[in-house]
Amino acid sequence: MNSMKATVMYGAGDVRVEDVPDPVLREPTDALVRVLRSCICGSDLWPYGSMPASEHGQRMGHEFLGVVAETGEDVSGLRTGDLVIAPFVWSDNTCDFCREGWHTSCRHGGLWGRALDGGQGEALRVPQAQGTLVKLPAGIGPESPLLPSLLTLSDVFCTGHHAAVKARVSPRTSVTVIGDGAVGLCAVLAARRLGAERILLMGRHKERTDLGREFGATDVIPERRAEGIERIKDLTSGDGTHAVLECVGTGEAIEMALGAVRDGGVVSRVGAAQYSHVPMDFGTLMRNITLTGGVAPARAYIEELLPDVLDGTIEPGLVFDRTVSLDDVPDGYRAMARREALKVLVRP
Amino acid sequence: MNSMKATVMYGAGDVRVEDVPDPVLREPTDALVRVLRSCICGSDLWPYGSMPASEHGQRMGHEFLGVVAETGEDVSGLRTGDLVIAPFVWSDNTCDFCREGWHTSCRHGGLWGRALDGGQGEALRVPQAQGTLVKLPAGIGPESPLLPSLLTLSDVFCTGHHAAVKARVSPRTSVTVIGDGAVGLCAVLAARRLGAERILLMGRHKERTDLGREFGATDVIPERRAEGIERIKDLTSGDGTHAVLECVGTGEAIEMALGAVRDGGVVSRVGAAQYSHVPMDFGTLMRNITLTGGVAPARAYIEELLPDVLDGTIEPGLVFDRTVSLDDVPDGYRAMARREALKVLVRP
Repeated sequence: MNSMKATVMYGAGDVRVEDVPDPVLREPTDALVRVLRSCICGSDLWPYGSMPASEHGQRMGHEFLGVVAETGEDVSGLRTGDLVIAPFVWSDNTCDFCREGWHTSCRHGGLWGRALDGGQGEALRVPQAQGTLVKLPAGIGPESPLLPSLLTLSDVFCTGHHAAVKARVSPRTSVTVIGDGAVGLCAVLAARRLGAERILLMGRHKERTDLGREFGATDVIPERRAEGIERIKDLTSGDGTHAVLECVGTGEAIEMALGAVRDGGVVSRVGAAQYSHVPMDFGTLMRNITLTGGVAPARAYIEELLPDVLDGTIEPGLVFDRTVSLDDVPDGYRAMARREALKVLVRP
Repeated sequence: MNSMKATVMYGAGDVRVEDVPDPVLREPTDALVRVLRSCICGSDLWPYGSMPASEHGQRMGHEFLGVVAETGEDVSGLRTGDLVIAPFVWSDNTCDFCREGWHTSCRHGGLWGRALDGGQGEALRVPQAQGTLVKLPAGIGPESPLLPSLLTLSDVFCTGHHAAVKARVSPRTSVTVIGDGAVGLCAVLAARRLGAERILLMGRHKERTDLGREFGATDVIPERRAEGIERIKDLTSGDGTHAVLECVGTGEAIEMALGAVRDGGVVSRVGAAQYSHVPMDFGTLMRNITLTGGVAPARAYIEELLPDVLDGTIEPGLVFDRTVSLDDVPDGYRAMARREALKVLVRP
């Protein structure tokens, strides 16, 4: 093929599927991957709501799994035909940051889209392919029913997991999850997987919080702001919970998180921050509150989480409630922006 | 004795040593302690600089060691004549918060001074004495040269230690310490004790940074703000350090801390926060920066740190560079406020 289809955003509300040049190898560390499944991320909705009009547009999509089509000469361990998961940030997996598990700060890494190819297309060039891509076991084929759950390891489930890991969730930890979007629901599932027995989910969309209960939420709190904090306090003898996983990213959400956390506890934030400052004042100092979290180094977690997806222990793919073809990606954006869909799977 | 001397603050710059009634047991869990050594805390300088004039005043002092004079009937494990260290917050040492190591959030705890007695006096009533007081080994007498170092376990060294522990300082961690006050210098010593080999101390008072070098600082950085951050970056290949221990409490200090910390790193704050908000924005989220720390649960650390003080492995008492009698406590405040003294020991 000389050209292929890919998703390009030209401005707020303006997403198009267009013919673009086929990807080609540029560096000996590159691979080309044909996309089997990709999806639309809650974070794609931020530019979808606010991106200034652009003549050239921006390639979209950072969550995908696919089939290796070609590899550069420095890539070992991967062959044409291998099924692979790509984390949402590419990385060499060898630098000091990667060795410490901070693949999102890799010295030779970067984000899909923008100048590079995006995942919401037929194929793409993967830089640092050997470090970035995680090969699936031979038993998994291109029609495996596990693909949706495997795809969540690209970003959304790893993001929920990161929130829970950074908050040191364990069987001894009570947990509040703020947000019933796909990340929030994955955070519930991740907290349950790490042994949490008490998980309070703050959300008000019944079909979403129902899935949250299926994932392990023990209580659902539709109230927000001061009322929401009060409900959390009521449910925890006035103390709040040891961990609060903030999966929204607004100033209101981070304030609720700080209000709902128990003395000595941890607020772990993975929602894309729309705020510039956090009210960590003298009061939070006296209460020994920790604020942690950040963009998830998915690459650091995929191998650890893979077995639980493969054997069905967890099924994070349940967050996908709609599937579209590549041509229908613009409809997918619209549905997610209108909250008609929780998370949209793309099947090129 | 029916009356004794104690320090009372009546407003900014107005500290007096006065006759007050002798302390008496009120609860069966109380003990009375005669003070052997106490000291003036950097945090005492905040009200000394800003307290509105008050008719009744406020008793001062929250760091002390002394001799048990009398115990309530529910106090076991302590006898008249025992030498004890008091952490700067009293606590029952049995509630769920204490069991988790958060004695500063004890369900039956509180702070010295204010309505209660303070440590800058001849004697005081200690609530929850059995949980609060830590008995010294029999070999330590009232004239032991170790008393100054032992006294630092009451607050200042435990505060530096808390900063380092919460930042998970280890031999693999590079560390920046912001502030060359007594807490900052103790943080240097604590980081060194936990194995840190690279410790950058930000401070500009030579006699203090010299003690910092003695405690383990490998580099001293007198620059502040953007220049200070630049120096830290220069000294760390542009990365910043894994841990930053913020021991000042101003908005400027917390901003420097966030600028000096490496991706994936930890800012641990123990400076009494004079700011209401922290700039933890989208950038710090992408860099996975953790903000932790808080008021130190000294009680949780004293037993662990005691052996290293007793055998001379660490000598945190070197932060005391002046000793005053009780009558001269007002001079001690003045000297610390004018930075003529680093930390003042009080010997009633």
